[in-house]
Amino acid sequence: MKVVFIGSGNVATHMALALKEAGNAIVQVYSRTLENAKLLADRVGAEPVDNLKDLNRAADFYIFSVKDDVLPRIVTQMPSTTGIWAHTAGSVPVSVLSPHTKRGALYPLQTFSREREVDFQDIPLFIEGESGETATLLKELAEMISANVRFLSGDKRRILHLAAVFACNFANHMYTLASEIMSEEEIPFYLLNPLINETAAKVILMEPKAAQTGPAVRSDEKVMQKHLELLNDPLKREIYSLVSRSIHIVSGNR
Amino acid sequence: MKVVFIGSGNVATHMALALKEAGNAIVQVYSRTLENAKLLADRVGAEPVDNLKDLNRAADFYIFSVKDDVLPRIVTQMPSTTGIWAHTAGSVPVSVLSPHTKRGALYPLQTFSREREVDFQDIPLFIEGESGETATLLKELAEMISANVRFLSGDKRRILHLAAVFACNFANHMYTLASEIMSEEEIPFYLLNPLINETAAKVILMEPKAAQTGPAVRSDEKVMQKHLELLNDPLKREIYSLVSRSIHIVSGNR
Repeated sequence: MKVVFIGSGNVATHMALALKEAGNAIVQVYSRTLENAKLLADRVGAEPVDNLKDLNRAADFYIFSVKDDVLPRIVTQMPSTTGIWAHTAGSVPVSVLSPHTKRGALYPLQTFSREREVDFQDIPLFIEGESGETATLLKELAEMISANVRFLSGDKRRILHLAAVFACNFANHMYTLASEIMSEEEIPFYLLNPLINETAAKVILMEPKAAQTGPAVRSDEKVMQKHLELLNDPLKREIYSLVSRSIHIVSGNR
Repeated sequence: MKVVFIGSGNVATHMALALKEAGNAIVQVYSRTLENAKLLADRVGAEPVDNLKDLNRAADFYIFSVKDDVLPRIVTQMPSTTGIWAHTAGSVPVSVLSPHTKRGALYPLQTFSREREVDFQDIPLFIEGESGETATLLKELAEMISANVRFLSGDKRRILHLAAVFACNFANHMYTLASEIMSEEEIPFYLLNPLINETAAKVILMEPKAAQTGPAVRSDEKVMQKHLELLNDPLKREIYSLVSRSIHIVSGNR
């Protein structure tokens, strides 16, 4: 398949590399800045472009992987093409790509960082298509890079994205706060590695609610009071109190 | 070694099983309720007791693994013994065990659930002893069950415990909130498994701050606004706003 990427960020980079690896031709990479387009284009043997007028009109797929709020403006500047347009955004309806009719979404449920390689085979990809035919073609493309492809409506996709913000972005921020607390006392963060791994591994096998441990779930007021006293950053104190309260409520110890 | 356990909860259970496995004799398990004492005692071939007066005085180690606020009361009821007393609490100074002189702490940095087996070899164990001799003896005991044993002062232990609350208890609660959001829409939680795994795996290799992704770190106000609208639970909305604000501040995009 011939694929054009609109955007050259982390999602575009990892997806383009996987599609290339699977035997597809990445014909172009567009970015507002040619330098960024070139960074990804060079890795996948594509032509870098910084003007949407220069887009190849004969590709099979145009994959939009840009910031959500940039997407509508880009769509208005798109030349007309016959290929399928699909974006990778969790919280954006596919209608953003109208009036192009062959439109859809190809949402990878994963956290991508430039420096970290990922195995696309394990990444759940969620497909939506304006028509059954478009959805099927997108699914076929997706199945070239992942063993974990599903159809999902836009309404459910945005719920999944919201849940992912909690399970990934917010969980990671909890690691960050832990890391800050430790570095102030010069305790190395890697000591938490087995704990972080086990916390994640547990919820593969049991409900996260049942996996909950710690002072908040066992209503250990004394420990929580000590912890609040140890935190000199008011924002960390606020997070500590609020999340502890939420744990308490969810566990039914209200 | 002859070991007595004071307490029969998750930490006591997993540690007693590991010590027994390593060839030690668990001579007694004390719990306020004989039934609970028996549950663990039966698994490790120990005598269950529900009265501290019945404690064997000839054990080498007495390991206190009870709720933090119960510990002081139990200590006042302890008979005098010649063996070492050690507690497993992150946030409690070893002075809670005075006037007994051979006192210390043996703190396992892990999350334990009754239903989930753990491999103690990988669990970091942190040792504190009132004297160098006590610390060394505790370290020897700890090294029978873990390849990851370190001395750590009580002051640093409580910081580590606080950090663990964020990295484990609070991260797990983020999984719980994600699970609630998904179950309302009948989206199965296991779809998040690869994401949760990758989020944890990333911070083994890179700083959590550098691993941060999502709308808050890229200041995607539009997505965050949509997410807040999707959340009908005020507590989840409050957590979403507060944690997003904290991510924003930590990432320096203020």
